[in-house]
Amino acid sequence: MAPKHDLQYPKGAQNTLNRYSDRGSYDLEKVHKIVNSTPVLHVSFQPDPSDPFPAILPMIGQMGSFERPSSSISDPLDCYLHGYISSRVMNVSRAAIASGKPGLPVCIAASKVDGLVLSLTPNSHSYNYRSAVLFGYATPVTDTEEKEWAMEMITNSVVPQRYDNTRIPPIPAEMQSTQILRVTIDSASSKVRDWIPSDSAEDMANKEVVDKVWVGVVPVYETYGEPIPSPLNKVEKVPEYIEEFLKESNEEGLAYATAAGKRPLPVKAKTNHDE
Amino acid sequence: MAPKHDLQYPKGAQNTLNRYSDRGSYDLEKVHKIVNSTPVLHVSFQPDPSDPFPAILPMIGQMGSFERPSSSISDPLDCYLHGYISSRVMNVSRAAIASGKPGLPVCIAASKVDGLVLSLTPNSHSYNYRSAVLFGYATPVTDTEEKEWAMEMITNSVVPQRYDNTRIPPIPAEMQSTQILRVTIDSASSKVRDWIPSDSAEDMANKEVVDKVWVGVVPVYETYGEPIPSPLNKVEKVPEYIEEFLKESNEEGLAYATAAGKRPLPVKAKTNHDE
Repeated sequence: MAPKHDLQYPKGAQNTLNRYSDRGSYDLEKVHKIVNSTPVLHVSFQPDPSDPFPAILPMIGQMGSFERPSSSISDPLDCYLHGYISSRVMNVSRAAIASGKPGLPVCIAASKVDGLVLSLTPNSHSYNYRSAVLFGYATPVTDTEEKEWAMEMITNSVVPQRYDNTRIPPIPAEMQSTQILRVTIDSASSKVRDWIPSDSAEDMANKEVVDKVWVGVVPVYETYGEPIPSPLNKVEKVPEYIEEFLKESNEEGLAYATAAGKRPLPVKAKTNHDE
Repeated sequence: MAPKHDLQYPKGAQNTLNRYSDRGSYDLEKVHKIVNSTPVLHVSFQPDPSDPFPAILPMIGQMGSFERPSSSISDPLDCYLHGYISSRVMNVSRAAIASGKPGLPVCIAASKVDGLVLSLTPNSHSYNYRSAVLFGYATPVTDTEEKEWAMEMITNSVVPQRYDNTRIPPIPAEMQSTQILRVTIDSASSKVRDWIPSDSAEDMANKEVVDKVWVGVVPVYETYGEPIPSPLNKVEKVPEYIEEFLKESNEEGLAYATAAGKRPLPVKAKTNHDE
């Protein structure tokens, strides 16, 4: 068995973190975990060189490897995207490949807010958050087997085990209308803030200010509410695989955000001050 | 008094919606409301023409008008951005202005998930969501008065009335280290899905499928948990302006997501089917 190493994305012009660099990481595992637990990814691309503006599409995505499906979260993975795939992004991806490029250059961002960090002065207010950014080349998936594999992975990322509990396999019309992009990752990074408020020594020593301003963290977490059956629904009880997932996710969300709001400042205090 | 019109962003190459266009709107009010209630905006820009990849920064932002502070949410507004403002985005904004452009071209996306839409077939799964996209030109705010006005607006967007309940005004060092971007909007659009699952007539008539697959909506909403005082905190009780905001936001989030999960399909059913 090969020795265990924590694989890291190489630092380059795109992904190197300058500000608050002690919050950052290039670990594949950290980056991939944030991406895989974010319900909506934001995907940016340049629609046309003559267009002044880049575009952003909100999409659903997951990291995975079709070549090595048994890969773990800390292995090199591709990012598969689904959701609102405009014909524009598919057309420019195809055009990029046709012109000899490795695909359409995209930037993918995954961000979660875990808490409101309310400190003494507006400047030092912040969020507790987890964020990851990927840079890579997007290619439309044309292989039927890979497309179905990606559809299953992405469906199960919304609710685990959901795919096998729906009407499958997809019919030919569904396979044809489904568009999936595979993004080969060029570089990536992640950034996390998960601790209590931080203020300057001067403000903390100002009794008048400290006596007046409530300081602390308000935990923020995404909650799944009571499932609402559709008028069409004929299954009497919400299935266990759904109930369990909702319960676990809600407990995890609350636990993470609460722990972050109580965590002391990191020792490397140089860039703690949120300004 | 001028007659009331619902102002709309003009449709152009960037913002015209093609897919599911019945979910879309160009109303200033709808776009601005989604932006102003989204805790993290995703801001995309091209760091360098020679760089293959666009970049995305997660930032805090609010629509507002410094020129006409009494503007309503349905009036023409600028987008003010704060948060992790890399020196890169400030440098390229300044360079864009120096080269005679109206600012750095950016795309800003605001997206909220309101529910998991679990339908009969993987293809027709979806989210209930609210999303808005703005295209515009970003300029660093250099005027001290405008900067302080924007800091107040953005701080109060996190928790209303927070600004006046902190140590203000910002000291010169804080004003200097704070970087705010003002984005003049060129075009924008919004998209909302807020209804029950939608499946094809064929699947809905398939008794075997309907008897097996639970269909419905799981409401999703951001929750604010119990505030956690910092070890530094000396204010015994969580102030009312914070408590009230948290309570109202939690009630609103749950109510919106639940109502969306129960809303019948829109009458214009042509593009309802989520594939």
